[in-house]
Amino acid sequence: MAARILAGALAGAGATVVLNDAYPDAIPSLGLSRPKDIKLTYFDIAGVADKVRIAMHIGGMAFEDDRVSFAQWPSIKPTTPNGQLPLMESGGKRYTQSSAMLQLVGKLTGLQSRDPWAALLVDEVIGLDEDFRKKVAPSVYVAYDKSLSARQKKAKVAPMRKTIAEEDIPFYFSRFEKKLEENEYLTGPKVTIADVQFLTTVRWMSSGILDGIPATCLDPFPKIKAFKEKMEAIPEVAAYLESTKKK
Amino acid sequence: MAARILAGALAGAGATVVLNDAYPDAIPSLGLSRPKDIKLTYFDIAGVADKVRIAMHIGGMAFEDDRVSFAQWPSIKPTTPNGQLPLMESGGKRYTQSSAMLQLVGKLTGLQSRDPWAALLVDEVIGLDEDFRKKVAPSVYVAYDKSLSARQKKAKVAPMRKTIAEEDIPFYFSRFEKKLEENEYLTGPKVTIADVQFLTTVRWMSSGILDGIPATCLDPFPKIKAFKEKMEAIPEVAAYLESTKKK
Repeated sequence: MAARILAGALAGAGATVVLNDAYPDAIPSLGLSRPKDIKLTYFDIAGVADKVRIAMHIGGMAFEDDRVSFAQWPSIKPTTPNGQLPLMESGGKRYTQSSAMLQLVGKLTGLQSRDPWAALLVDEVIGLDEDFRKKVAPSVYVAYDKSLSARQKKAKVAPMRKTIAEEDIPFYFSRFEKKLEENEYLTGPKVTIADVQFLTTVRWMSSGILDGIPATCLDPFPKIKAFKEKMEAIPEVAAYLESTKKK
Repeated sequence: MAARILAGALAGAGATVVLNDAYPDAIPSLGLSRPKDIKLTYFDIAGVADKVRIAMHIGGMAFEDDRVSFAQWPSIKPTTPNGQLPLMESGGKRYTQSSAMLQLVGKLTGLQSRDPWAALLVDEVIGLDEDFRKKVAPSVYVAYDKSLSARQKKAKVAPMRKTIAEEDIPFYFSRFEKKLEENEYLTGPKVTIADVQFLTTVRWMSSGILDGIPATCLDPFPKIKAFKEKMEAIPEVAAYLESTKKK
């Protein structure tokens, strides 16, 4: 089953986000979609695509939110450029790499600054978030190791998660916390793609999905907790998150 | 010993690189430096900083190429924002994250397009290169594991390198090879930051530095070999690489 949610329509008069100085061909205002039709294909999970989806929602870009099931994937995989999702399609062309897509959406919507030095601050935060995700990734990939039994996987993952919970989260999140003590959002007074990406990271870490990472892991970081709530309360984000809740 | 190479002066009349449509505040022409003085601090190796250094050389951006020895590092580490290098300093501010720096340099020099859709193609290639580097990274980090003896490290690294040489290089490099069959450079007829980044990857892989990765690993990829030679022959790149040769 491929769920399709036509987005963009979610953006409306309730929008409160102040966007950055937009690129020359950015969308003229919130709620108006770009002329090019965009389709984003990914699994029916947040994963690495949710940052792109959420940025499009906040920026008021209409897109087709195409979701493939894990059962469908083996038949679709050989048709994708590098055997990977997400896949973005627009104007008859296909694009890969979620980080590249996020930059595109940022530039089209104003969630990325067109000033190279302001964008550097945004990209710096994204890089820090990527560094943190690189610490988490090996523990997630264990699940795909077919040479291990379920018990062996659990035994291998446990100490890795302990390190993430006790060392990596404190190290990285204290740096994000400090940024949020200095500014309303991670790089200043406006929402950027860096905020969107970090939102998906804190939602992941505090979801309780990852064994060994407690849903309370944000408790030592009050600014990050408040940031998460504020981002989730942006009307377009709230509407999107509501729409993805499993029935 | 901190080696300092004043760059930018290397760029001269011999420049053959055609730059993309530049950003509004891009440098007016090759060989002219930006008014802001830039200092880039990193170890005296290529590592993740060489893509930034090489992009600045190609783009004709003057910068101070500050290099710290591994002996100096423990005393410098606590003074850096996240205990990491590279560190870029400009206008009294400090910036981290080499990928963010590369985007900045690209935008300032025209090695990154200001058209969001053209930049997407560049960022897509950078993302593919990052995916490949993520495959290599775990085998490099083994060297820093203090719980292992030299013999244990060697035993642990060997099968990882075998996978890189026999699976990852064929998988990823065949994709880059295909791109170079379609275009002179990875995304089209002009050099971009994607070409610069991939150049540093192929130089690393074919250097013979990595145990288990033969210096002949590019032999199955004639287009990549020719690309490497062409990039290294760009006058600014050739001058820079010559300047870094150990005396």
